[in-house]
Amino acid sequence: MLIIGIDPGLACTGWGIVAKSGSRLSHVANGQVRTDTNASLAERLVTLDTELTDVILAHRPDTGAVEEVFVNTNAQSTLKLGQARGVCLLALARAGMPVAEYATSLVKKALVGTGRAEKTQVQAMLKILLPGVKPAGADAADALAVAITHANMLGSHR
Amino acid sequence: MLIIGIDPGLACTGWGIVAKSGSRLSHVANGQVRTDTNASLAERLVTLDTELTDVILAHRPDTGAVEEVFVNTNAQSTLKLGQARGVCLLALARAGMPVAEYATSLVKKALVGTGRAEKTQVQAMLKILLPGVKPAGADAADALAVAITHANMLGSHR
Repeated sequence: MLIIGIDPGLACTGWGIVAKSGSRLSHVANGQVRTDTNASLAERLVTLDTELTDVILAHRPDTGAVEEVFVNTNAQSTLKLGQARGVCLLALARAGMPVAEYATSLVKKALVGTGRAEKTQVQAMLKILLPGVKPAGADAADALAVAITHANMLGSHR
Repeated sequence: MLIIGIDPGLACTGWGIVAKSGSRLSHVANGQVRTDTNASLAERLVTLDTELTDVILAHRPDTGAVEEVFVNTNAQSTLKLGQARGVCLLALARAGMPVAEYATSLVKKALVGTGRAEKTQVQAMLKILLPGVKPAGADAADALAVAITHANMLGSHR
């Protein structure tokens, strides 16, 4: 079973795909979609949609999960993130796969055991869980963590 | 020239299409896309994307505009609206048309002459500008107002 995780953002969206075979996890691919800050919002969303859809078509994941974004007091930032996140959720769901959502604290708890883990702890655990993995960047690493969380959740539901 | 206006919302998105011929405007179509509040967020965004895309394919507008949403202090509401708005912007841009964005106050000013106009004033002006128009609801009426604003802006750029 192939599982895609997404860490959404307008400037940079991370994605990561893991394979689950029984209780065994392995890394398949990861990357980041960057959008041109000089382009219009609509154009940036098209770039995000197009590149994510290319990733989905290339790997055909069976299920996906999108990180719940941190909602802060800056409404304009929340709106930007929301617009990118909407496009990410759409890209996965339109491909016909079930889409889960996980809070950042749940992702940290799933990987490190505490919802208040540091980013570096999550990244260290990522290297243990997916030996040899080389994340394309911090957002791709977060996306892989989301994919692992989803893989574990799927296991625990059975 | 056909112009589509959108008033985005997760529960209900209004759309309205007007035709511009010289300085003459006429109503073409309008409607509202409602999403099932019991469905998942991803499923709701797919409904929004699918129905808006159907509208675009049926009418093939040349250009479009999306209302800038009211960003309030409730971050969760802002996020919801952002996710729906991202999908609306994407649907228009993906169809290859240029997409403009207008603040609510600018739409009110374009129709009524003041950015602080009441909703009822906007709707009354809508009936004068588009004789015989029957908006499918308040969101469709707002969307037609956005389309008229865009039509006027396009004219003033020439």
